[in-house]
Amino acid sequence: MPDNLILKSALIAALFMTMSAPALSREATVAPAPNGIAIPKDYKTWQPLGVSHRTDKDSLRIILANPIATKAATEGKTNPWPDGSMLAKLAWKDSTHPNFAAATVPGELTHVEFMIRDSKKFADTNGWGYARWLGMEQKPYGNDAGFAQECSTCHLQAKETGYVFTRKAPLP
Amino acid sequence: MPDNLILKSALIAALFMTMSAPALSREATVAPAPNGIAIPKDYKTWQPLGVSHRTDKDSLRIILANPIATKAATEGKTNPWPDGSMLAKLAWKDSTHPNFAAATVPGELTHVEFMIRDSKKFADTNGWGYARWLGMEQKPYGNDAGFAQECSTCHLQAKETGYVFTRKAPLP
Repeated sequence: MPDNLILKSALIAALFMTMSAPALSREATVAPAPNGIAIPKDYKTWQPLGVSHRTDKDSLRIILANPIATKAATEGKTNPWPDGSMLAKLAWKDSTHPNFAAATVPGELTHVEFMIRDSKKFADTNGWGYARWLGMEQKPYGNDAGFAQECSTCHLQAKETGYVFTRKAPLP
Repeated sequence: MPDNLILKSALIAALFMTMSAPALSREATVAPAPNGIAIPKDYKTWQPLGVSHRTDKDSLRIILANPIATKAATEGKTNPWPDGSMLAKLAWKDSTHPNFAAATVPGELTHVEFMIRDSKKFADTNGWGYARWLGMEQKPYGNDAGFAQECSTCHLQAKETGYVFTRKAPLP
């Protein structure tokens, strides 16, 4: 390859990388979980399904649902949840509002976690794929793919509601 | 007008009403607040800005922001918030999760309330229009337009953050 062609190719490649970078969402650069699940790139656009305060963890959470899961929850068709349902839970450490002492508000982000419904692909964990990313650096949780058994075992307590703890918060 | 034409018109009108009904959003049928503010029809599609637990009210809240307010909060351009910013707060009474005792979750919906930024229209209340609807029946709050002074007076405590108590919850 002549030198000027190599240079030209390198320049085109550099230009392409520069142009592409802003188009990549923040989520596209996050490492996948050990079971191969990638962080859903559009989760911030999902609708709120619920909220919770964990007194054992001193933690506030918002639970979001993608359109398939929102429809299923609204219609009460959640046992089982339809394939394609996805739920996100965003969890923060408790903090006290700096000028409203009676309000507990989000402090440090502890993790963002997901449940992804695919009754065949995730048959070993009752049809739900689990994944979690820790902190603002979004470090994947778990040493190997076996971590999902830990999630699935705990979620057996919610078997009667399709292995999902969150009930849809009342809203007209 | 001949009788059959009247009948035909009535039938067409009835058919039109029947067809239109499902197209109306739930919010379109809610009575406006005493200051004329109507419930924003697309608020359920707004993104979460924060969450809070009020220990004085035993209440869990989700705070949503429309795209203008989300952008302003993300960029830290919130003093003042740009005109067109809208915030929603959904508030529920505390309840204990039926099979997870350490989790406080939404019980009864107490109210849905909004802050709508228009620095000229709402100059009397520091540039924010306020409105609140109570319960699942969405009864407008306030006896007359003066109710917004009550909201505005309390929000003076948040003057340094553009009269908004909610800070954006950390999220990558």
